[in-house]
Amino acid sequence: MGTEKHQTGEARRRIAANIRRLRLERGLSQEGMAELADFHRTYVSQLERCVTNISIDGLERLAIALGVDISELLEVHKN
Amino acid sequence: MGTEKHQTGEARRRIAANIRRLRLERGLSQEGMAELADFHRTYVSQLERCVTNISIDGLERLAIALGVDISELLEVHKN
Repeated sequence: MGTEKHQTGEARRRIAANIRRLRLERGLSQEGMAELADFHRTYVSQLERCVTNISIDGLERLAIALGVDISELLEVHKN
Repeated sequence: MGTEKHQTGEARRRIAANIRRLRLERGLSQEGMAELADFHRTYVSQLERCVTNISIDGLERLAIALGVDISELLEVHKN
């Protein structure tokens, strides 16, 4: 997280943590997750490293692929 | 909402409704809200008409300007 260029980045960090947690719960690789949501194979890796500024439509595609409500991807997960 | 081009658009509609509600609660015009979050003066109007695919960093700027958690902008508001 030391390379972030934007001022706050809290939203990116929450998305990264939630995508990673939900992906692993489903036994998916980063590439498998990307394929499910129709992203380039390296995109989920970028998301999980907080280096990409995803759009809301892209985030919605990920939520649909994971079977969760989009608001869950921005929540702080407790344990 | 009849002119949306993307398949789902639920996320855009929630953001539009939440931005509009929170903005009006604070007595802000669309231009005033845009200025607060350092967007072009027409951008909040575009958001409220669901015609723009905002990025997560942009959404975070709006949340900070409105003084709410970013997850609130994606929730379904009950009344």
